[in-house]
Amino acid sequence: MPHDLFDPPALDPSTLRIIPLGGVGEIGRNMTAYEFGGKLLIIDAGVLFPEETQPGVDLILPDFGPIRDRLDDVVAVVLTHGHEDHIGAVPYLLRMRQDIPIIGSTLTLALIEAKLKEHRIQPYTHTVKEGQVEQLGPFALEFIAVNHSIPDALAIVVSTPAGTVLHTGDFKMDQLPLDDRITDLRAVARWGEKGVDLVLSDSTNADVPGFTALERDIGPVLENVIARARRRVIVASFSSHVHRVQQVLDAAHANGRKVALMGRSMVRNMTIAADLGFLKVPEGILIDHKKAATLPDDQIVYMSTGSQGEPMAVLARMANLEHQIEIGEGDTVILASSLIPGNENAVYRVINGLMKLGAKVVHKGTARVHVSGHASAGELLYFYNVLRPKNVMPVHGEQRHLVANAELAIATGVPEQNVLLADNGSVVDLRDGVARVVGQLDIGFVYVDGSTVGAITDADLKDRRILAEEGFISIFVAVDAQTGRAVVGPEIHARGFAPDEAVFDEVKPQIVAALAEAAANGTRDQHAFSQVVRRVVGRWVNTQHRRRPMIVPVVIEA
Amino acid sequence: MPHDLFDPPALDPSTLRIIPLGGVGEIGRNMTAYEFGGKLLIIDAGVLFPEETQPGVDLILPDFGPIRDRLDDVVAVVLTHGHEDHIGAVPYLLRMRQDIPIIGSTLTLALIEAKLKEHRIQPYTHTVKEGQVEQLGPFALEFIAVNHSIPDALAIVVSTPAGTVLHTGDFKMDQLPLDDRITDLRAVARWGEKGVDLVLSDSTNADVPGFTALERDIGPVLENVIARARRRVIVASFSSHVHRVQQVLDAAHANGRKVALMGRSMVRNMTIAADLGFLKVPEGILIDHKKAATLPDDQIVYMSTGSQGEPMAVLARMANLEHQIEIGEGDTVILASSLIPGNENAVYRVINGLMKLGAKVVHKGTARVHVSGHASAGELLYFYNVLRPKNVMPVHGEQRHLVANAELAIATGVPEQNVLLADNGSVVDLRDGVARVVGQLDIGFVYVDGSTVGAITDADLKDRRILAEEGFISIFVAVDAQTGRAVVGPEIHARGFAPDEAVFDEVKPQIVAALAEAAANGTRDQHAFSQVVRRVVGRWVNTQHRRRPMIVPVVIEA
Repeated sequence: MPHDLFDPPALDPSTLRIIPLGGVGEIGRNMTAYEFGGKLLIIDAGVLFPEETQPGVDLILPDFGPIRDRLDDVVAVVLTHGHEDHIGAVPYLLRMRQDIPIIGSTLTLALIEAKLKEHRIQPYTHTVKEGQVEQLGPFALEFIAVNHSIPDALAIVVSTPAGTVLHTGDFKMDQLPLDDRITDLRAVARWGEKGVDLVLSDSTNADVPGFTALERDIGPVLENVIARARRRVIVASFSSHVHRVQQVLDAAHANGRKVALMGRSMVRNMTIAADLGFLKVPEGILIDHKKAATLPDDQIVYMSTGSQGEPMAVLARMANLEHQIEIGEGDTVILASSLIPGNENAVYRVINGLMKLGAKVVHKGTARVHVSGHASAGELLYFYNVLRPKNVMPVHGEQRHLVANAELAIATGVPEQNVLLADNGSVVDLRDGVARVVGQLDIGFVYVDGSTVGAITDADLKDRRILAEEGFISIFVAVDAQTGRAVVGPEIHARGFAPDEAVFDEVKPQIVAALAEAAANGTRDQHAFSQVVRRVVGRWVNTQHRRRPMIVPVVIEA
Repeated sequence: MPHDLFDPPALDPSTLRIIPLGGVGEIGRNMTAYEFGGKLLIIDAGVLFPEETQPGVDLILPDFGPIRDRLDDVVAVVLTHGHEDHIGAVPYLLRMRQDIPIIGSTLTLALIEAKLKEHRIQPYTHTVKEGQVEQLGPFALEFIAVNHSIPDALAIVVSTPAGTVLHTGDFKMDQLPLDDRITDLRAVARWGEKGVDLVLSDSTNADVPGFTALERDIGPVLENVIARARRRVIVASFSSHVHRVQQVLDAAHANGRKVALMGRSMVRNMTIAADLGFLKVPEGILIDHKKAATLPDDQIVYMSTGSQGEPMAVLARMANLEHQIEIGEGDTVILASSLIPGNENAVYRVINGLMKLGAKVVHKGTARVHVSGHASAGELLYFYNVLRPKNVMPVHGEQRHLVANAELAIATGVPEQNVLLADNGSVVDLRDGVARVVGQLDIGFVYVDGSTVGAITDADLKDRRILAEEGFISIFVAVDAQTGRAVVGPEIHARGFAPDEAVFDEVKPQIVAALAEAAANGTRDQHAFSQVVRRVVGRWVNTQHRRRPMIVPVVIEA
């Protein structure tokens, strides 16, 4: 349901222009372009993970279209934090111009550098931290500490002569966080008093009433579950959730258990986090999985990936007995993670599989073993009341989240006409304290599939969905163009359609007859003969089998 | 994760044997066979709706395998209630033997008769009601009223000389139901005092703590939402949920609005329910949608299907502006239904679409506009404490639900060894008050696709999943078998793979060369040539594109 497209006016020199290239109307591929005085500033460049209607797609990128021809004007890409939906598209952006400066906090840069190394890209980076001020071309930036489900996250104040914008990035307001690094409401208040013209704010949990529970309420629950576990404990969570892993390390330590990290991304990220001091590893607690296999069952915790039911991740392979760790009676599995909508079937399949093997499974639905990293409605109200922004643009959410966030802003007194329900590609101009949508660009999905970027189109995905639902029938026939006589074939093959290709013997004579008849009626060219074959087979399969497979006729002239 | 298969012993004449043919380890296709004295009794015959891993499948049936050769021994199919997951497979069963007596309550039989009429089957039916006793061969049945999300539901006591079983069907224990027909705990208590050897009990909400809220708490919420609606109101719910529709009719009536029923199944089921007196229609409130279009927006409620995001149902078409009712600013849409796991993406897509059109959307997550039809943990504890069964077999649930239900039974004092965690195809023998799993049959998925039943196999679905993820490449080539020379072709076509078939020009010479080389090395037959083509194309696509499409080579001899 894209908005109607319309061209924005030429950009006035005294106006700040903001265009989200992804992340508005969806959760993922966050990327926003700020333009002033002929220069561009990019905040975040993340990926979106495909839905079941986008089969075979590996990743979805923001649409670089609106900035593609202006990469030399980009002064920097600033990253708010190290999650994939904020940094995952950076390698694809740098493929187009490798020397765009990448700015972010210590942990964020360490994570993007590790990722870029896999892509064999060595970036130009610049480390910043909360409180720091940077001037990038016409953009004056100040960084504000925010609390999220990964350490070292930042909100960014973007000041220009046209006005000041606060870009929150992802945040919540845990008042007693594990690392004591709270979202800096004093800085928000100070900026509020100076006057913030526009805020782009995280909408993920805007439709969740109340307050996101404290991270530190989880530790005792984990400790208790592990204390009561009879045999092995397997904890699955997100591979970048340093605080959750910290809690598991601490809970294991308190119970005299060792911890083995499982899964490539878990090992990589936690090594980085430990090296930089974000993860405090109790002396001697980490062991590798080979060593773990030699310990008694009640002295080990495996910390793994796969909490979203991903079929190739450690946890799903355990549930299918396809992993070296064979789950059995008495083992305890903890899913210390949220359940991302769309993953329910996959996750419950894993849970059911583990339970059939005899494991006890503890998850968010049965115990408080996870809390979200995003601010709920109650926190957003605090935030708006402290900031008192002139204009609000909800981002980082589906329409239902954006609307909920908009309602909160309005409830705190932001005038309704100053709350912008935008979309990817909406062109928002800020001038004299007023933000308005002045254009709507066409923003598409850019699919990464194998080594291709942007090659797979929505039409290909439609074909794939048809293939998935109905399979296909391919018909090869070589004809004498004069007589329509089938010289070779019809050869008919099908997949995903029926187990027995003998059914096609019925339709072959119909194809032969139709081709001859078409030739008698003057048909001569390959394409027209193909259409004849398509029609005959389509009608037959529909009436005889009530099915609509993809029909792929190949007619060549003999 | 099927259990290991093992054959049951020959059935002893003094033993009652129970085999679930569907519905255990899954929610759907409920069907249980009871065998005693050479006769079979079937309780329910429902369908299961496919998951995203079963693309293109219309329905999944129970596996009739274990009773297929013994249909003449079936004394009756008894239906607990009229939901699809309990009655949907009856037409397929009756195709094998049309005169199996169908037994059920008034509404249940009316619904199955309407369904069978569409299949052009006229069944042999026999109406029963709560309190009634029936003798069917060696099976003495007594029916007990239960409360569920469809009226006129029954639990069934099956008594044989080998023992007594209570088969709950789907139930909850709303203590103030809209129709005053509560689950008859006095009957349950009476049977408990006589002694029930085994209960097969509904596990759907066994992992939900506490009690399912009262149906009558929903009416005022609906009434309030409708009272505050500025323009049209659209309510989506399940097409058989008579009580929910009743509440919508009453709430519309209280607000001076008319109601138009939308969707074929909604109209059909509510016509039946009204004719039989289960739905009380306020005088003159129902109008058709043509008439509705002529009324002012604030005088109409549309009652529709599509609450699960089904793409072809009324609600999804409204969200896509593909329906005659064009949703706009100020309209209110209420999803008065549960959100069945696996449907989240589809439902949220519809919600986001409606909100983009300007509608206000109210759903279970934002207001109490629906409650479940199944007993929560608290209710199941009451039930077990009143019944005090000797043995318990949780049914109607995935493994996680069955395990939760088992734990409740054990908590009320049922010995752990008497609580059976069974599977579809588990053979359970009851004798002398002891129920044990004595065998495990192989139970498969029986897929309905178009007009075929059981033709599509798991291997076909695997093909479909590969086609969905990767698309396919088909290669046709006619060769001279002696020289391996490509006389016609290679003709290469692909779908779901790449937008541009010109890429294949690169691999064609490789195919030609490989065929010639194979012939030079002595290859002569079609199959071996096909393998050569598959290998060449497979290697090329993997190295050049890092993809793994299905490769369909067709080599014929020229």
